[in-house]
Amino acid sequence: MAVSLVILAAGQGSRMNSDVPKVLHPLAGVPMVVHAMRAGAALDPDRVVVVAGHGADAVRAAVEAEDTAAQVVVQAEQLGTGHAVAQAAGALSDVAGDVVVLYGDTPFVSADTLDRLVAARAAHDVVVLGFHATDPGRYGRLILEGDALSRIVEYKDASEAERAVDLCNSGVICADRAVLMDLVAALSNDNAAGEYYLTDVVGAARARSLSAGVVVCDQAETLGVNTRAELAVAEGVYQARARAAALENGVTLLAPDTVFFALDTHIGRDAVVEQNVVFGPGVTVESGAVIRAFSHLEGCHVSRGAVVGPYARLRPGAELAEDVRIGNFVEVKNAVLDAGAKVNHLSYIGDANVGEGTNIGAGTITCNYDGVFKHRTEIGAHAFIGSNTMLVAPVRVGARALTASGSVITADVPDGALAVARARQEVKPGLAERLMDRLRAAKAAGKKGRG
Amino acid sequence: MAVSLVILAAGQGSRMNSDVPKVLHPLAGVPMVVHAMRAGAALDPDRVVVVAGHGADAVRAAVEAEDTAAQVVVQAEQLGTGHAVAQAAGALSDVAGDVVVLYGDTPFVSADTLDRLVAARAAHDVVVLGFHATDPGRYGRLILEGDALSRIVEYKDASEAERAVDLCNSGVICADRAVLMDLVAALSNDNAAGEYYLTDVVGAARARSLSAGVVVCDQAETLGVNTRAELAVAEGVYQARARAAALENGVTLLAPDTVFFALDTHIGRDAVVEQNVVFGPGVTVESGAVIRAFSHLEGCHVSRGAVVGPYARLRPGAELAEDVRIGNFVEVKNAVLDAGAKVNHLSYIGDANVGEGTNIGAGTITCNYDGVFKHRTEIGAHAFIGSNTMLVAPVRVGARALTASGSVITADVPDGALAVARARQEVKPGLAERLMDRLRAAKAAGKKGRG
Amino acid sequence: MAVSLVILAAGQGSRMNSDVPKVLHPLAGVPMVVHAMRAGAALDPDRVVVVAGHGADAVRAAVEAEDTAAQVVVQAEQLGTGHAVAQAAGALSDVAGDVVVLYGDTPFVSADTLDRLVAARAAHDVVVLGFHATDPGRYGRLILEGDALSRIVEYKDASEAERAVDLCNSGVICADRAVLMDLVAALSNDNAAGEYYLTDVVGAARARSLSAGVVVCDQAETLGVNTRAELAVAEGVYQARARAAALENGVTLLAPDTVFFALDTHIGRDAVVEQNVVFGPGVTVESGAVIRAFSHLEGCHVSRGAVVGPYARLRPGAELAEDVRIGNFVEVKNAVLDAGAKVNHLSYIGDANVGEGTNIGAGTITCNYDGVFKHRTEIGAHAFIGSNTMLVAPVRVGARALTASGSVITADVPDGALAVARARQEVKPGLAERLMDRLRAAKAAGKKGRG
Repeated sequence: MAVSLVILAAGQGSRMNSDVPKVLHPLAGVPMVVHAMRAGAALDPDRVVVVAGHGADAVRAAVEAEDTAAQVVVQAEQLGTGHAVAQAAGALSDVAGDVVVLYGDTPFVSADTLDRLVAARAAHDVVVLGFHATDPGRYGRLILEGDALSRIVEYKDASEAERAVDLCNSGVICADRAVLMDLVAALSNDNAAGEYYLTDVVGAARARSLSAGVVVCDQAETLGVNTRAELAVAEGVYQARARAAALENGVTLLAPDTVFFALDTHIGRDAVVEQNVVFGPGVTVESGAVIRAFSHLEGCHVSRGAVVGPYARLRPGAELAEDVRIGNFVEVKNAVLDAGAKVNHLSYIGDANVGEGTNIGAGTITCNYDGVFKHRTEIGAHAFIGSNTMLVAPVRVGARALTASGSVITADVPDGALAVARARQEVKPGLAERLMDRLRAAKAAGKKGRG
Repeated sequence: MAVSLVILAAGQGSRMNSDVPKVLHPLAGVPMVVHAMRAGAALDPDRVVVVAGHGADAVRAAVEAEDTAAQVVVQAEQLGTGHAVAQAAGALSDVAGDVVVLYGDTPFVSADTLDRLVAARAAHDVVVLGFHATDPGRYGRLILEGDALSRIVEYKDASEAERAVDLCNSGVICADRAVLMDLVAALSNDNAAGEYYLTDVVGAARARSLSAGVVVCDQAETLGVNTRAELAVAEGVYQARARAAALENGVTLLAPDTVFFALDTHIGRDAVVEQNVVFGPGVTVESGAVIRAFSHLEGCHVSRGAVVGPYARLRPGAELAEDVRIGNFVEVKNAVLDAGAKVNHLSYIGDANVGEGTNIGAGTITCNYDGVFKHRTEIGAHAFIGSNTMLVAPVRVGARALTASGSVITADVPDGALAVARARQEVKPGLAERLMDRLRAAKAAGKKGRG
Repeated sequence: MAVSLVILAAGQGSRMNSDVPKVLHPLAGVPMVVHAMRAGAALDPDRVVVVAGHGADAVRAAVEAEDTAAQVVVQAEQLGTGHAVAQAAGALSDVAGDVVVLYGDTPFVSADTLDRLVAARAAHDVVVLGFHATDPGRYGRLILEGDALSRIVEYKDASEAERAVDLCNSGVICADRAVLMDLVAALSNDNAAGEYYLTDVVGAARARSLSAGVVVCDQAETLGVNTRAELAVAEGVYQARARAAALENGVTLLAPDTVFFALDTHIGRDAVVEQNVVFGPGVTVESGAVIRAFSHLEGCHVSRGAVVGPYARLRPGAELAEDVRIGNFVEVKNAVLDAGAKVNHLSYIGDANVGEGTNIGAGTITCNYDGVFKHRTEIGAHAFIGSNTMLVAPVRVGARALTASGSVITADVPDGALAVARARQEVKPGLAERLMDRLRAAKAAGKKGRG
């Protein structure tokens, strides 16, 4: 059955106290709206329409970065959720099947729940996602007649008996595209706020003798974010689940509470993650790899047997083959390291290929930027790059080549060759003592030194 | 109305199990006594007198570092809180108005509470700060007669009815300077401990037909610190409040529990602070700046649009103008970076000025210390400092100048010039393979290498 | 009284979802089985026998790394705890005295509890360690007759009255070696699981008119680990205790929850440990030393007055004398630093000796590895190593010697001498501007640069 998504993402989120549109605030390393997009993507939707409003250009950029096929429509004035859905009518006019309405600020609705929601359309024309609230408070209540949803009643309009109902409205809804758009087009804003409410669709459907039903999910899936404090809670919920899932999947976490996952982090069984590790988006760590303490990874791949850190930073494009070692105070960016390559200390490896078994000495830097262009460094297999070698790209160091410690390599080094670019050492006996005596005398005389 | 402060800070804090005087243990990045000083400073006091005892010299240093005008008097023997206040009599003999007595180990009394305390002096000769305790335990009880404070009764002396009272004594008190000093001078130490108790001042005042009143604050403000475990709790309380306030003020905290604030940290709206960031004293981060994970900042200023970290360390005197970038494994100290300057990797920039738009390559070091003196490095605008450049200060690199990668710059470089200080590269074909073969043969023969 | 240990460590721990044997999963920086070994070691045992099974070779390696005298016997098939103990019979056949049976996955039984267990043998032939469970659930129950242990009844076989008993079996047991081995040799596996249960030893002992007794410990000591989630809980329990103990012992922890201790970490009174510090095994920090934020220490010694970090990594063999300073982005390995030596920034000091008061400039690297061998660097007292000095080991820099910034030191430097190994600076006026203009023009023309 064909499905399309409408994701409401127009609100300013004034309680966030931010110039950033609410749905772009980050959760698990990605903009909040991406969570709804990913959950919805599991339905394999024919079309995804995001309704933006405040900060629409920024929302469009984030949405398209996640899914180039997604369409962003702009709700110029925020006149209510029903009005927002209506904005998507044009973008959906040529698709058949159902529409699921999701919310950019409700990140935890699961793919499984959406499957059940869509499946329930077999029995009802309109299906609403509900939840049993531990404290129903001021949520809208879902009033049932047998299995069918009779109506949605706002708290302020509810009778005592209705307020005693704990089945509440999540706002997520599913219906045939044509039916839904007909219903929202006919909504009235004749209410205190002067807004068009999507929830009124249920009453309107019933008035047309259409049937409505409810699918129930866990309340935790419906957690919405309206303030930064709520966002912090949501992040905590996300991380707690991700940590528990990692443990369940056989990942060794020495201190789970200090490890931060992104939405798409993949960590293999028996991989070890030590204390204080941050995973940004796009990281895969294979089974049996070790990520040591204080490491930061984004957009990278760490293969089986590799050891990373402590204090290693892997940036996008870092590809580590099996048994690679990346040590402390090392940054790797847009670089492929073949099996067994080692960069153990204080180095920057950017825009580079490093061959199998090659050892990169401490303090090595790929000088990849000339102020205008970025260039690439190629290092062959089983080479030995001496400490503090500057590799001025574009440059190639051959297989089994050596560079002498402290060399600035500006020209290619053939396979098996030794490259040296440094001055010969001179020793001046006694001069250190004389120099220091002079400096100390200057200080004693109250001078400020050479400067 | 003129006000002076007396801050009691003489106790050893034996339960801290420390040679450091209790009030100097750090809370939110500053000695605990500074918290009372800052709260009191909001009253704009005419004089601040700190009564020190154990470790008086260290306490004096900390007090004067916070407020050069504060006076420290020494209570040679710890004979009770009343005796401690009496030590301040001389230092206050020439000031008019009220005295507020605070405690160096009670860091959370708020400026607002102190305002109310002083204001209550309009109605009473002596005003005591009280709180309703959830578990009054062994606190002294404040016994009221109507609105007036009748007396303070110690737990051990209290009747059943008095013990049922939940209004407890914080120890903070306010009275006219001359009245208070008269009262404390007349205190008796005729009690089990042989100490002079400041609380007895209330009874003595009533005996002289002076009126006493109570101002009530939240119990949390009266939290005192007697052990390291209590200090850890206090730190947790402080940080939780600071994090909540930052969120409320529109700061993006990806993981609030991993960010540590100092007492005077200022973070602008829509600034982003990632995981595991430590703010020492004296940090201002402007709106929209980004502090990435694992960064450590003290005594520095980060302007709008700047991005710091991950793994950046900003030390005192680091001044980052708009859009500056400080990257990983970079230390900046006592240095001004103009707009758009970049120091992205593995560098030490100390005692320096860096011009607008200048790019500092990886591995650059300002060699600011000659063993005796510190010297300054000046770099002009739009310069390009090649990777691994040593800038041997005092030295000046002009605007739009370049330094070649791996150069040691010991002499000034004019505007627009290129400076090179490195050896020419030599390549010795096949030598790497021969050298490595020799080493491997030596190893196979059981030798220990060159050493 | 002579005692030997049998530690059961054969289980696969299938619920760990791991190829690593359960008892080798790390807790507080050491394999879990080491905790039982350390607790037992306090009894000064004549012999330690570890019964391994799954991953026996890896278990053997870990056990021998902890205690070279420990014997590992292999239980080829896992036929129950009684069968496991029987495997140790041969290894213990020549020792007299008692045997205590411990578990490799029950890390918190204390040395004190074991002392009490052994002492209770004075009154009983067999002594079982029990605990009062807050929720007895499906634990085996210890059924007493007066002071004596009548029998151990499994939950599923227990009567209602027996299930009401909250005294539960920990599995830890103590008996005379010969008696215990006789009893386990006679066990039957005539039960639903077809296993030989160690707990049946109590019934068998009673049947032989031997007496059995119970020693009770806190339930927390009996915490067992069966899943990674339980291991994470155990780690949390361990760390919470270690942090509380450190505070109690007078250590300053700015944020206790962010400090991770290993089983053998020793921190002196009034040492300061800032936020986010990880202690691996084998660390001693003396009284009054300071470990700053984001530091990582393993196998090292930090003396009084030394300051380490932030972002310092001390690896095994780092020995810091009094008042040494190790600053940010510095790695120290297998190196002895004498009093007052300083390595403040971005350096790697490995396989080295550094003399008293010597200052190591930023970016210094001991080039200790030639691709085959490791070599040592010796630096005398009061030397000054200029920034970015490469010390190509084996090499010796004398006392009071200087090395010029950016030098590669390949030959020894005598005491008091200055060593320079760098090229002279050349300045090419205007060349920087011409080069950059050319690059920018190339970019404007759409070229990709030199590469």
